[in-house]
Order: sequence, then structure tokens, then C-alpha cells
Amino acid sequence: MPTSPLPAFTPPDPGFAARVRDSFDRQAAMRLIGASLSHLEPGCADVTLPYRDDLTQQHGFVHGGITGMIADSACGYAGYSLMPAGASVLTVEYKINMLSPAQGDTLIARAHVIKPGKTLVVTQCEVYAVHNGAEKLCAVMQQTLMVMHGRSDHKETT
Amino acid sequence: MPTSPLPAFTPPDPGFAARVRDSFDRQAAMRLIGASLSHLEPGCADVTLPYRDDLTQQHGFVHGGITGMIADSACGYAGYSLMPAGASVLTVEYKINMLSPAQGDTLIARAHVIKPGKTLVVTQCEVYAVHNGAEKLCAVMQQTLMVMHGRSDHKETT
Amino acid sequence: MPTSPLPAFTPPDPGFAARVRDSFDRQAAMRLIGASLSHLEPGCADVTLPYRDDLTQQHGFVHGGITGMIADSACGYAGYSLMPAGASVLTVEYKINMLSPAQGDTLIARAHVIKPGKTLVVTQCEVYAVHNGAEKLCAVMQQTLMVMHGRSDHKETT
Amino acid sequence: MPTSPLPAFTPPDPGFAARVRDSFDRQAAMRLIGASLSHLEPGCADVTLPYRDDLTQQHGFVHGGITGMIADSACGYAGYSLMPAGASVLTVEYKINMLSPAQGDTLIARAHVIKPGKTLVVTQCEVYAVHNGAEKLCAVMQQTLMVMHGRSDHKETT
Repeated sequence: MPTSPLPAFTPPDPGFAARVRDSFDRQAAMRLIGASLSHLEPGCADVTLPYRDDLTQQHGFVHGGITGMIADSACGYAGYSLMPAGASVLTVEYKINMLSPAQGDTLIARAHVIKPGKTLVVTQCEVYAVHNGAEKLCAVMQQTLMVMHGRSDHKETT
Repeated sequence: MPTSPLPAFTPPDPGFAARVRDSFDRQAAMRLIGASLSHLEPGCADVTLPYRDDLTQQHGFVHGGITGMIADSACGYAGYSLMPAGASVLTVEYKINMLSPAQGDTLIARAHVIKPGKTLVVTQCEVYAVHNGAEKLCAVMQQTLMVMHGRSDHKETT
Repeated sequence: MPTSPLPAFTPPDPGFAARVRDSFDRQAAMRLIGASLSHLEPGCADVTLPYRDDLTQQHGFVHGGITGMIADSACGYAGYSLMPAGASVLTVEYKINMLSPAQGDTLIARAHVIKPGKTLVVTQCEVYAVHNGAEKLCAVMQQTLMVMHGRSDHKETT
Repeated sequence: MPTSPLPAFTPPDPGFAARVRDSFDRQAAMRLIGASLSHLEPGCADVTLPYRDDLTQQHGFVHGGITGMIADSACGYAGYSLMPAGASVLTVEYKINMLSPAQGDTLIARAHVIKPGKTLVVTQCEVYAVHNGAEKLCAVMQQTLMVMHGRSDHKETT
């Protein structure tokens, strides 16, 4: 069997859910495209995106960069859910394979933590296109996050 | 010397510029975020994105997914410029490293083709944040494209 | 739930097992490092590597490049198992995250196919370090393969 | 212009060359495959690998995993040359695209640092196959390293 069951994670911050949702809500770019944080548990996060004409590329499918955006956010918040209360999260890098056209009523990016390190966190994400209730895998991502200890998650004000 | 001069490419389609610009103009997602195709030559494309508040993540910088979007598009059109007239382009996968916060007046994604294969095209991109005229490298991408021979670049109509 | 059960694959070539094992046996580089194809089923392959002092990097752990080698081979043969009899396989690209030092008695790379396309096949792999019977995840890979239809898997002779 | 001139780096450790060469010499895996550190300057490193039959895959070309190994080492030592004297280096992840078969008398992996951060260092590498004096680009890598401050580069002894 190639896949293993996911480990159960105990978040160091019991208030992780409110912290993650507050951070997601401050991502203006997620509002712009109409994405929402549709599921959250320790080490796992889903981001859901309803189809809109203004999110498409030249063939009328959701733009691959938009697919990457929601996968990057889902991975980032899966990782952030396991970080301590005073920390912030930064994307170091990600790699995404596009498997089939992102067409359907909705896209769902389902991310989970593979390795919750003290400084670096590694995550994976699967993006599904949902059409009339049927899900089709359309992209997979592997991502590295950095834990910014002691750095506020809020916008710096001067 | 680690870097080599870029090869000069001869596009198989002499009308490549009009074909690429027409395709870019049909990417609704690029309009949504305000990105434009600011430079084009055979095997090279730049995409420019002025800063807007609604493109940001929780720290007030441009969202990493948006940075990925313009790099993906710049790479895709750098590759598409070298494809034959009847072909379409598809992103197979990309990998992006975020090097510094995407802050400034404008982001510029500068992409070029590394290997123009018959079926697969490999590209690289550097994204710069421009602030008061000074450029700072903020991301690098490595991408694989597929040439879809004989497939229209337009939306399928039924 | 972030992970999905793997689809069951039906290989187009009923003689896939002999074909894959024959190809693996012709990889001189696998012999050099002492790796073997320890498990094979349609769309899945494991490569096992016993620890040896001459496979290490400067800290005495198995070299990350060696870890990449066995993951690349496991992924390649997972994909090759689903290809038609007359085809050959080529690695387009791979990305690997190192999660913990590759230390232990044995490394096992467990690969499976995510998307078996006609031209491109996408795979994933987990590499485990086994020490006294306990497994620890030490690397994850995401890879793209190309199906070379009508090209022999053997060395070209002139 | 898509490419920029490389920045000139000032290594914090004036004894970087001896430190890097000593570390490379302790990589048993590089000895096994016959690779040598053929060039070194601050932020840049080349690793050269003469062709050998026992380094090949099933088509008789150098195994893609071997190509990845020398690129990973070249990148790692390009980065390590810019790290302080008391630090060690760890590969976080890498991504490599195979562009053409690694065939020829010699492979040369030429790596350079893109971003020398305090904790993370990002590098790129081009691998060339040299045949009768002519070079052909056969792979490109993008890699992330971690600076392990205060950790010895030597094997731990107990």
C-alpha cells in the first residue's frame, strides 16, 4: 500500500481555529476571487472556490494560477493551524501539477500537513473539480512553509 | 560562469505576436487582477501587475498565489510564442520559490524559454518587485508546458 | 479527509510485471547503489536500498541525491507498469522534499501513480527510513513522466 | 532581457574554499560515482562527473537520479560557500527538469546562489553533457537549502 494514514496532530495553540479563520479573512486576494475556508481541523484545511467567468484562462477553464492560489492558501492554513499562537506563516515554495482542466461548478483544495517541523512545515494538497456532485482530481501540490516565530500575522502599521 | 547567454529563438509562426496577445487578452483572470503583457519577443514574455489592495495576503503584501499566477502566465506565453500557429498551450506543472515579500508599486514577471521541445517546453521566470524605480528579485519559477498540436486556443463552443 | 483511496488500475499490458522487472534490471545505476525492486503492482512500485557507508553525505546519512535516485526509479516504474507494451518511459521532472535524515538499516521508496495520462503520467512517492523495524517518513516526491510510444526500452545499438 | 547578471557575493567566512572542499571530500556518495568539485567561488560551484557504464539507466544514458545527485551537491556547496564558518548545510527540497538525455563524455553541474538568506538559501543549477568538447544543456534544478547554525558539518560520533 503506497499511502499511509495521516497522523493525528495536536495543535500547540488550542485557539488555532479562530486564529486561522481570522488570518484567512484578512487575505483580500481570497475575497477577490470568492474563495472561502470551508473546512478546518488540526493539520488540515479546505478552500472552496465557486466557478466564475472572470477566473478563467483562454479556454474558459479556471486559470491554473487561480488553482495554485487556493492550493497555496489551503496548504498555508493547514500548516498555520499547527503553529504556536505568536507565530506567523510564510510560503517558502510550492510545486503544482495540473492533472485535468479545472472545470465544474466548484473547486475544492484539500490540504494536509506531511511534516510539522519547528522551523519548516511540509504540506500536500489535492484540488478537485466538482461538477454535478462528482469530484475529479485536477491538481496536486507539494509545498514548504516557514514558521515565523514571534512575528505578528497582522499588517505592519507605521 | 554559471549563467549562459540565452539562445536566440526563431518562431515557427511569424504571426506569433498577434496570436500571443490575442490569447492573453482572452484570459479573464488576468483582467481581474489587472495584469498586462508588457513585453514579448520570441521565447520571452513579461507580465506586469500594478499593486492593488485587493491582491494582498494577511501581511499586506501581494498574495504568493497572485505572484504565481503572473509568473505562470508569463512562462506560458514565452513558450506559446515559439509554438506553431495551429497549436494551443497547457501548463503541465510549475514550481516557485518566494524569495522576499512582493511589496512595491508593481510586480514584473520576466519569463524565458529554456528548452523548446516538440511536445514539452521548459521555461523559467524571475519576478521582480519594483519600488520607486528600484527592482528587487522576489520569486523564481521553473515550469513545464505541453504543446497541444491541432487544438484551438479558443473556448470550445457547443 | 484530505487523502483519497487510490484508484485501482488495470494495466493495458498483462505482461507488465516481467517488462518492468526486466527494465529495472538493466539500470546499472541501481546495481551500483544496491537498490532492488521489492514490490510491484499496477500503478505502484517500491524500491528498497540497504544502508551502505559509501552512499553517505558528510554527516554519515544516505546522500539526498541517492534518496532522490530511488524515489525517481520507484516513480518511473510505478508509471511504466501502466504503459503499453511497446512504449518506453522518460522522466520529465521531479520535486523532492527531504523531511528527516535518511538514517536506518534500509530505505524504502513507495511510489504510486496519481494520473495515468496518454502522454504524461504523474506520480508521487514516499521514502521511509527503516530502523529496527520502525518506519520513519524521510522524503516525499512528486514527479512527471512521459510515455514514449513506439520507442524501445532497450539501449540503442548501432 | 530575462536574465540578470549574477550578484557578486562576499563570503562571511574567508576560509570558505577549504571548508567546502573538505566537506565535499567527506561525501562518500560522490566518490562512489566518481564526481569531483571542479570549480568553486563564492556562491558558485561546479561538480564534474565522467561517464561510466555503471551510472546508466536502461537506455544507456546517465541515470536521471545521478544527474540529480550532482546537481544537488553542486547547489549545496554553492550555498555552503556563503555560510558562516560554524554552520552546516541541509537540503530542504529540489526540483529538476530533464531536458535531454545525459549522454557524452562528462556531465558538468554548474550551480549558483539566487538568494542567500540567513536561514534559507535558494540556488539554481544547469547540468551540461559534454561530448567531444561541445556542451549541451541536459537538466535544470531549483533548490532550497537550510543553514544549520552552530551545527558541525562532521559526522556525529558517540
